[in-house]
Amino acid sequence: MKHITADNIRKMEKIFRLNLINSCTGYKSANLIATKSKSGNPNVAVFSSVTHIGSDPALLGFVTRPLSVARNTYNNIKETSVFTVNHIHEKMIERAHQTAAKYEEDISEFSKTGLIEEYLGDFHAPFVQQSEVKLGCRYVNEYEIKENDTVLVIAAIEHIYYDEGIQMPDGWLRLDDAGTVAVNGLDGYSLPSLLDRFHYARPGQEVKSFFSKSKDE
Amino acid sequence: MKHITADNIRKMEKIFRLNLINSCTGYKSANLIATKSKSGNPNVAVFSSVTHIGSDPALLGFVTRPLSVARNTYNNIKETSVFTVNHIHEKMIERAHQTAAKYEEDISEFSKTGLIEEYLGDFHAPFVQQSEVKLGCRYVNEYEIKENDTVLVIAAIEHIYYDEGIQMPDGWLRLDDAGTVAVNGLDGYSLPSLLDRFHYARPGQEVKSFFSKSKDE
Repeated sequence: MKHITADNIRKMEKIFRLNLINSCTGYKSANLIATKSKSGNPNVAVFSSVTHIGSDPALLGFVTRPLSVARNTYNNIKETSVFTVNHIHEKMIERAHQTAAKYEEDISEFSKTGLIEEYLGDFHAPFVQQSEVKLGCRYVNEYEIKENDTVLVIAAIEHIYYDEGIQMPDGWLRLDDAGTVAVNGLDGYSLPSLLDRFHYARPGQEVKSFFSKSKDE
Repeated sequence: MKHITADNIRKMEKIFRLNLINSCTGYKSANLIATKSKSGNPNVAVFSSVTHIGSDPALLGFVTRPLSVARNTYNNIKETSVFTVNHIHEKMIERAHQTAAKYEEDISEFSKTGLIEEYLGDFHAPFVQQSEVKLGCRYVNEYEIKENDTVLVIAAIEHIYYDEGIQMPDGWLRLDDAGTVAVNGLDGYSLPSLLDRFHYARPGQEVKSFFSKSKDE
């Protein structure tokens, strides 16, 4: 196996390091975060850092750099407290990736990418119409990660929209039925398919699949 | 589309909520975190919260509950400062899932799951032999997420091991060549395959694939 050391990493060419370090931690979630400023400017941007924080209360987190290309997202959330998280699917990976382009301040990515704004109920932030799983979220707190000037934003999940067909009777959403993608590194869009789903693991018991019946069932 | 509200979420049956909330944020990374206590007890546990924090310096983060089943992992990291992050592949999803069982305090999951400890160089923490991408990490800091008593651990990536065959000339690791899996919710193991990889997005330009030649190339 190839062995890369801390010293190798420090001395790497910048883009090479960016690609290696972004891909070595495994697949990441692929979501569009959409917001709207108080004055009415909508914004949508691709994020790979949305992660589960807890289910009771229902919380998610994402990491952002307040002064990056995503600053509109961050500023709009600070102004209005709300944002939406919208899954990226196979059919929209080009449009999702295009949101990462550095458009001028007052240009909405919605107007440039073919992603469609959708307003649901009286929620201030736009959802992405093409997305098949979408969350309405409210800012709760943020933690500054001082090691590299990023911020972990913590938010409450207040609305969830999805097609009932992708939900199993125990609440679980089967994401390959929605064609949700995952991200490999910064720019590789991958389509997962389910290998297996397992019951709660217990000491001394073999792992049991949800899909195969055990002999005594 | 089905619409779930904050009130619905609060009133949900616990397991149903756990499954829904864990799956609604998208695919997560699937990694085994391995540690060894000062006194020499090794430990390995499945984590779906490992995420990219930054590439210069090379940092990753993961979220844990210090008093959960993963407390050995957290305690060993606090004691020794080091841990390893090991990709989960298709061939080892049962063994990886089994690490989530609540074994007694002094029993190593390595001895019960068929995952094999491997020591590389003089790094104190064990790597998982079967894993094809593995990282040696050093604790840097932690942030207590007070909303639900979890902790975001931040660590420096000091060693990276992988087969050179999965790396593209620009540094990027093609994870489907390694058979790395992603997690859907708490317990669904999915195998992604690459749809496409795109060049840096720019305003006014169509998204360009790494794999298709443009007319002027």
